Amino acid sequence: MQAVALYPDGPELRVIEAADPVPSDDEVLVRTRRVGIDGSDRRIVAGDIGGDPPDGADHLVIGHEAVGVVEDPNGSDFETGDVVVPMVRRPTDETSRFAETGELDMAPPGTFSECGITGAHGYMAEYFTADPEYLVPVPDSLADYGIFVEPASIAEKALDQSFAARSGFDWRPETAFVLGNGNLGLLAIARLSTGEEFDRTYCLGRRDRPDPTIEFVESVGATYVDSRETELPEFPDVYEPADFVFETTGYPRHAIDAVGALGPNGIVTLQGIPGDSTFEVEGGGFHSDLVVNNKGVLGVVNSRRPHFEAAVEWLQTVPTAVLDDLVSGIYAVEEVEDALLDGDETIKTVVSFEK
Amino acid sequence: MQAVALYPDGPELRVIEAADPVPSDDEVLVRTRRVGIDGSDRRIVAGDIGGDPPDGADHLVIGHEAVGVVEDPNGSDFETGDVVVPMVRRPTDETSRFAETGELDMAPPGTFSECGITGAHGYMAEYFTADPEYLVPVPDSLADYGIFVEPASIAEKALDQSFAARSGFDWRPETAFVLGNGNLGLLAIARLSTGEEFDRTYCLGRRDRPDPTIEFVESVGATYVDSRETELPEFPDVYEPADFVFETTGYPRHAIDAVGALGPNGIVTLQGIPGDSTFEVEGGGFHSDLVVNNKGVLGVVNSRRPHFEAAVEWLQTVPTAVLDDLVSGIYAVEEVEDALLDGDETIKTVVSFEK
Repeated sequence: MQAVALYPDGPELRVIEAADPVPSDDEVLVRTRRVGIDGSDRRIVAGDIGGDPPDGADHLVIGHEAVGVVEDPNGSDFETGDVVVPMVRRPTDETSRFAETGELDMAPPGTFSECGITGAHGYMAEYFTADPEYLVPVPDSLADYGIFVEPASIAEKALDQSFAARSGFDWRPETAFVLGNGNLGLLAIARLSTGEEFDRTYCLGRRDRPDPTIEFVESVGATYVDSRETELPEFPDVYEPADFVFETTGYPRHAIDAVGALGPNGIVTLQGIPGDSTFEVEGGGFHSDLVVNNKGVLGVVNSRRPHFEAAVEWLQTVPTAVLDDLVSGIYAVEEVEDALLDGDETIKTVVSFEK
Repeated sequence: MQAVALYPDGPELRVIEAADPVPSDDEVLVRTRRVGIDGSDRRIVAGDIGGDPPDGADHLVIGHEAVGVVEDPNGSDFETGDVVVPMVRRPTDETSRFAETGELDMAPPGTFSECGITGAHGYMAEYFTADPEYLVPVPDSLADYGIFVEPASIAEKALDQSFAARSGFDWRPETAFVLGNGNLGLLAIARLSTGEEFDRTYCLGRRDRPDPTIEFVESVGATYVDSRETELPEFPDVYEPADFVFETTGYPRHAIDAVGALGPNGIVTLQGIPGDSTFEVEGGGFHSDLVVNNKGVLGVVNSRRPHFEAAVEWLQTVPTAVLDDLVSGIYAVEEVEDALLDGDETIKTVVSFEK
């Protein structure tokens, strides 16, 4: 079968001919339909993060946002033809209590591998195998759009954690603010704008009109905020205080400045993973503002089955035209280098294995 | 009656002879037994924070950590002689939804006054009046120790908010770390060391032995950590990662550095309220550490009735010898200036109105 493999030396990306995977006793064989590409794939291929091959292998098959069809249920409860989305993390120690409780997203670094990211092959191949406990069923109507389940599950986890964090009182949020208009930011603004949790939504970017991301933000009913005109701490005065901020930029000042965009009792969730960066902050005000306004900041990484399931629920409510607007290009596997290019017109690119 | 009044010009603190308060229809008359002093009282008296007199008054009666005895129930469900502790916040708008739900601790700044802190008279007077909804009943056994209910309620709120924040998964915390060995820090380390939530506890200070605060920390079974020897981000390596950090120092670097003391999935609660302070931070690492380890930071201010009630529950379980160790001096009202002094031997000072 064809597979997209990253060789660590270089690093070098190649489309290789690999042996078709053979499912072990506990595994299902899945035929891949589509694999989405996000910013972390670009960083992996560039050698910036992750990219470790599985033990004993000389390459890593990339891709972690996939949708496929069950080819061989192999004794599981799945049936041939079922549409499925695979989850990302696998325990390196099966007896880990996070593996037992299905909360690998909360497991400490070093106790798991991440398929297509580091330590375990991903899904950018004609076939992959997976234990059924890591496959989430998806309705046929999402066979093309299942690539959005994994990234949307991150937004679901952020919401889940934030509402949990505010469950100690009668929280009544009204406004949500997404930082960043990359593919995760746009998917999140769609989720938050079309969901029930918030009345008004905003999305931060730094683009001039006309721009497809600004058009998308406005098409889902959100307000575009230009970061060149409005600094985060000015957001409450220029627009209104945010009850929930969802950060996707990986810009390290946002971990501090986003607190200033919140109203009382608000929550920031951070999703970006920046490298080292030293800078000056007005740390006294950051500290006091958190306290006197009962604000909170939560780091959020990865997601678990209920978040995948919530994402599937949400995606079924979204007009396919909205999701189509997020796909800026569909590529054959031989065109993967093009799919990995990033530009002003790029939102979500997809590698398709459909013939 | 005698009252301790802060006049904003100067500011100047005086023991005055004031008219005995007359309860309005909805109010209970309380005879004050004791009033505790904390760091914010010292900052109020120094003119650094709060200190605004109530509308129309030329002075503010200070004191917000009080215990008293009902002198006149005035038609309420209380009986004469009941021991009570007053809560701190009062709504400036009775129709505020935070007043309605009893969650004034979560109300936005500007919508409440704080008795003895700003905008409403406190309790350092022979008598005070209060609506019964702001009085928490205390058993007679705590008549002397009721001054600890209000500060202990802050620790209860921090625990409540933190466990809520981690209710989105199966959190299994083991270790708690209190930053600061002032009177709130010591009360918190007693709470966390004697409670059920954590197996091991640590308290940060910067004192040389022999020292009464170090003795107290060790007497409740906690480990003393000298901040001159161990920087917060080194804490996990030198000791062990903390699951819960309770900050009481008001040192603004702690809002950043405490995240480094946490293990995966840990929560920092901030309680201190520093002034402005600009400094350099490794903000990229702060941001990434929060994300990849699912850490959180919560600001916590004030507390509400369930937190007061939890504090009363806990105080009933604590040997009075432990609480006695926290009281470094009991002063008559005429000695209030001495009670406000702070030194290496000072833990909690108390002004007593008992004759």
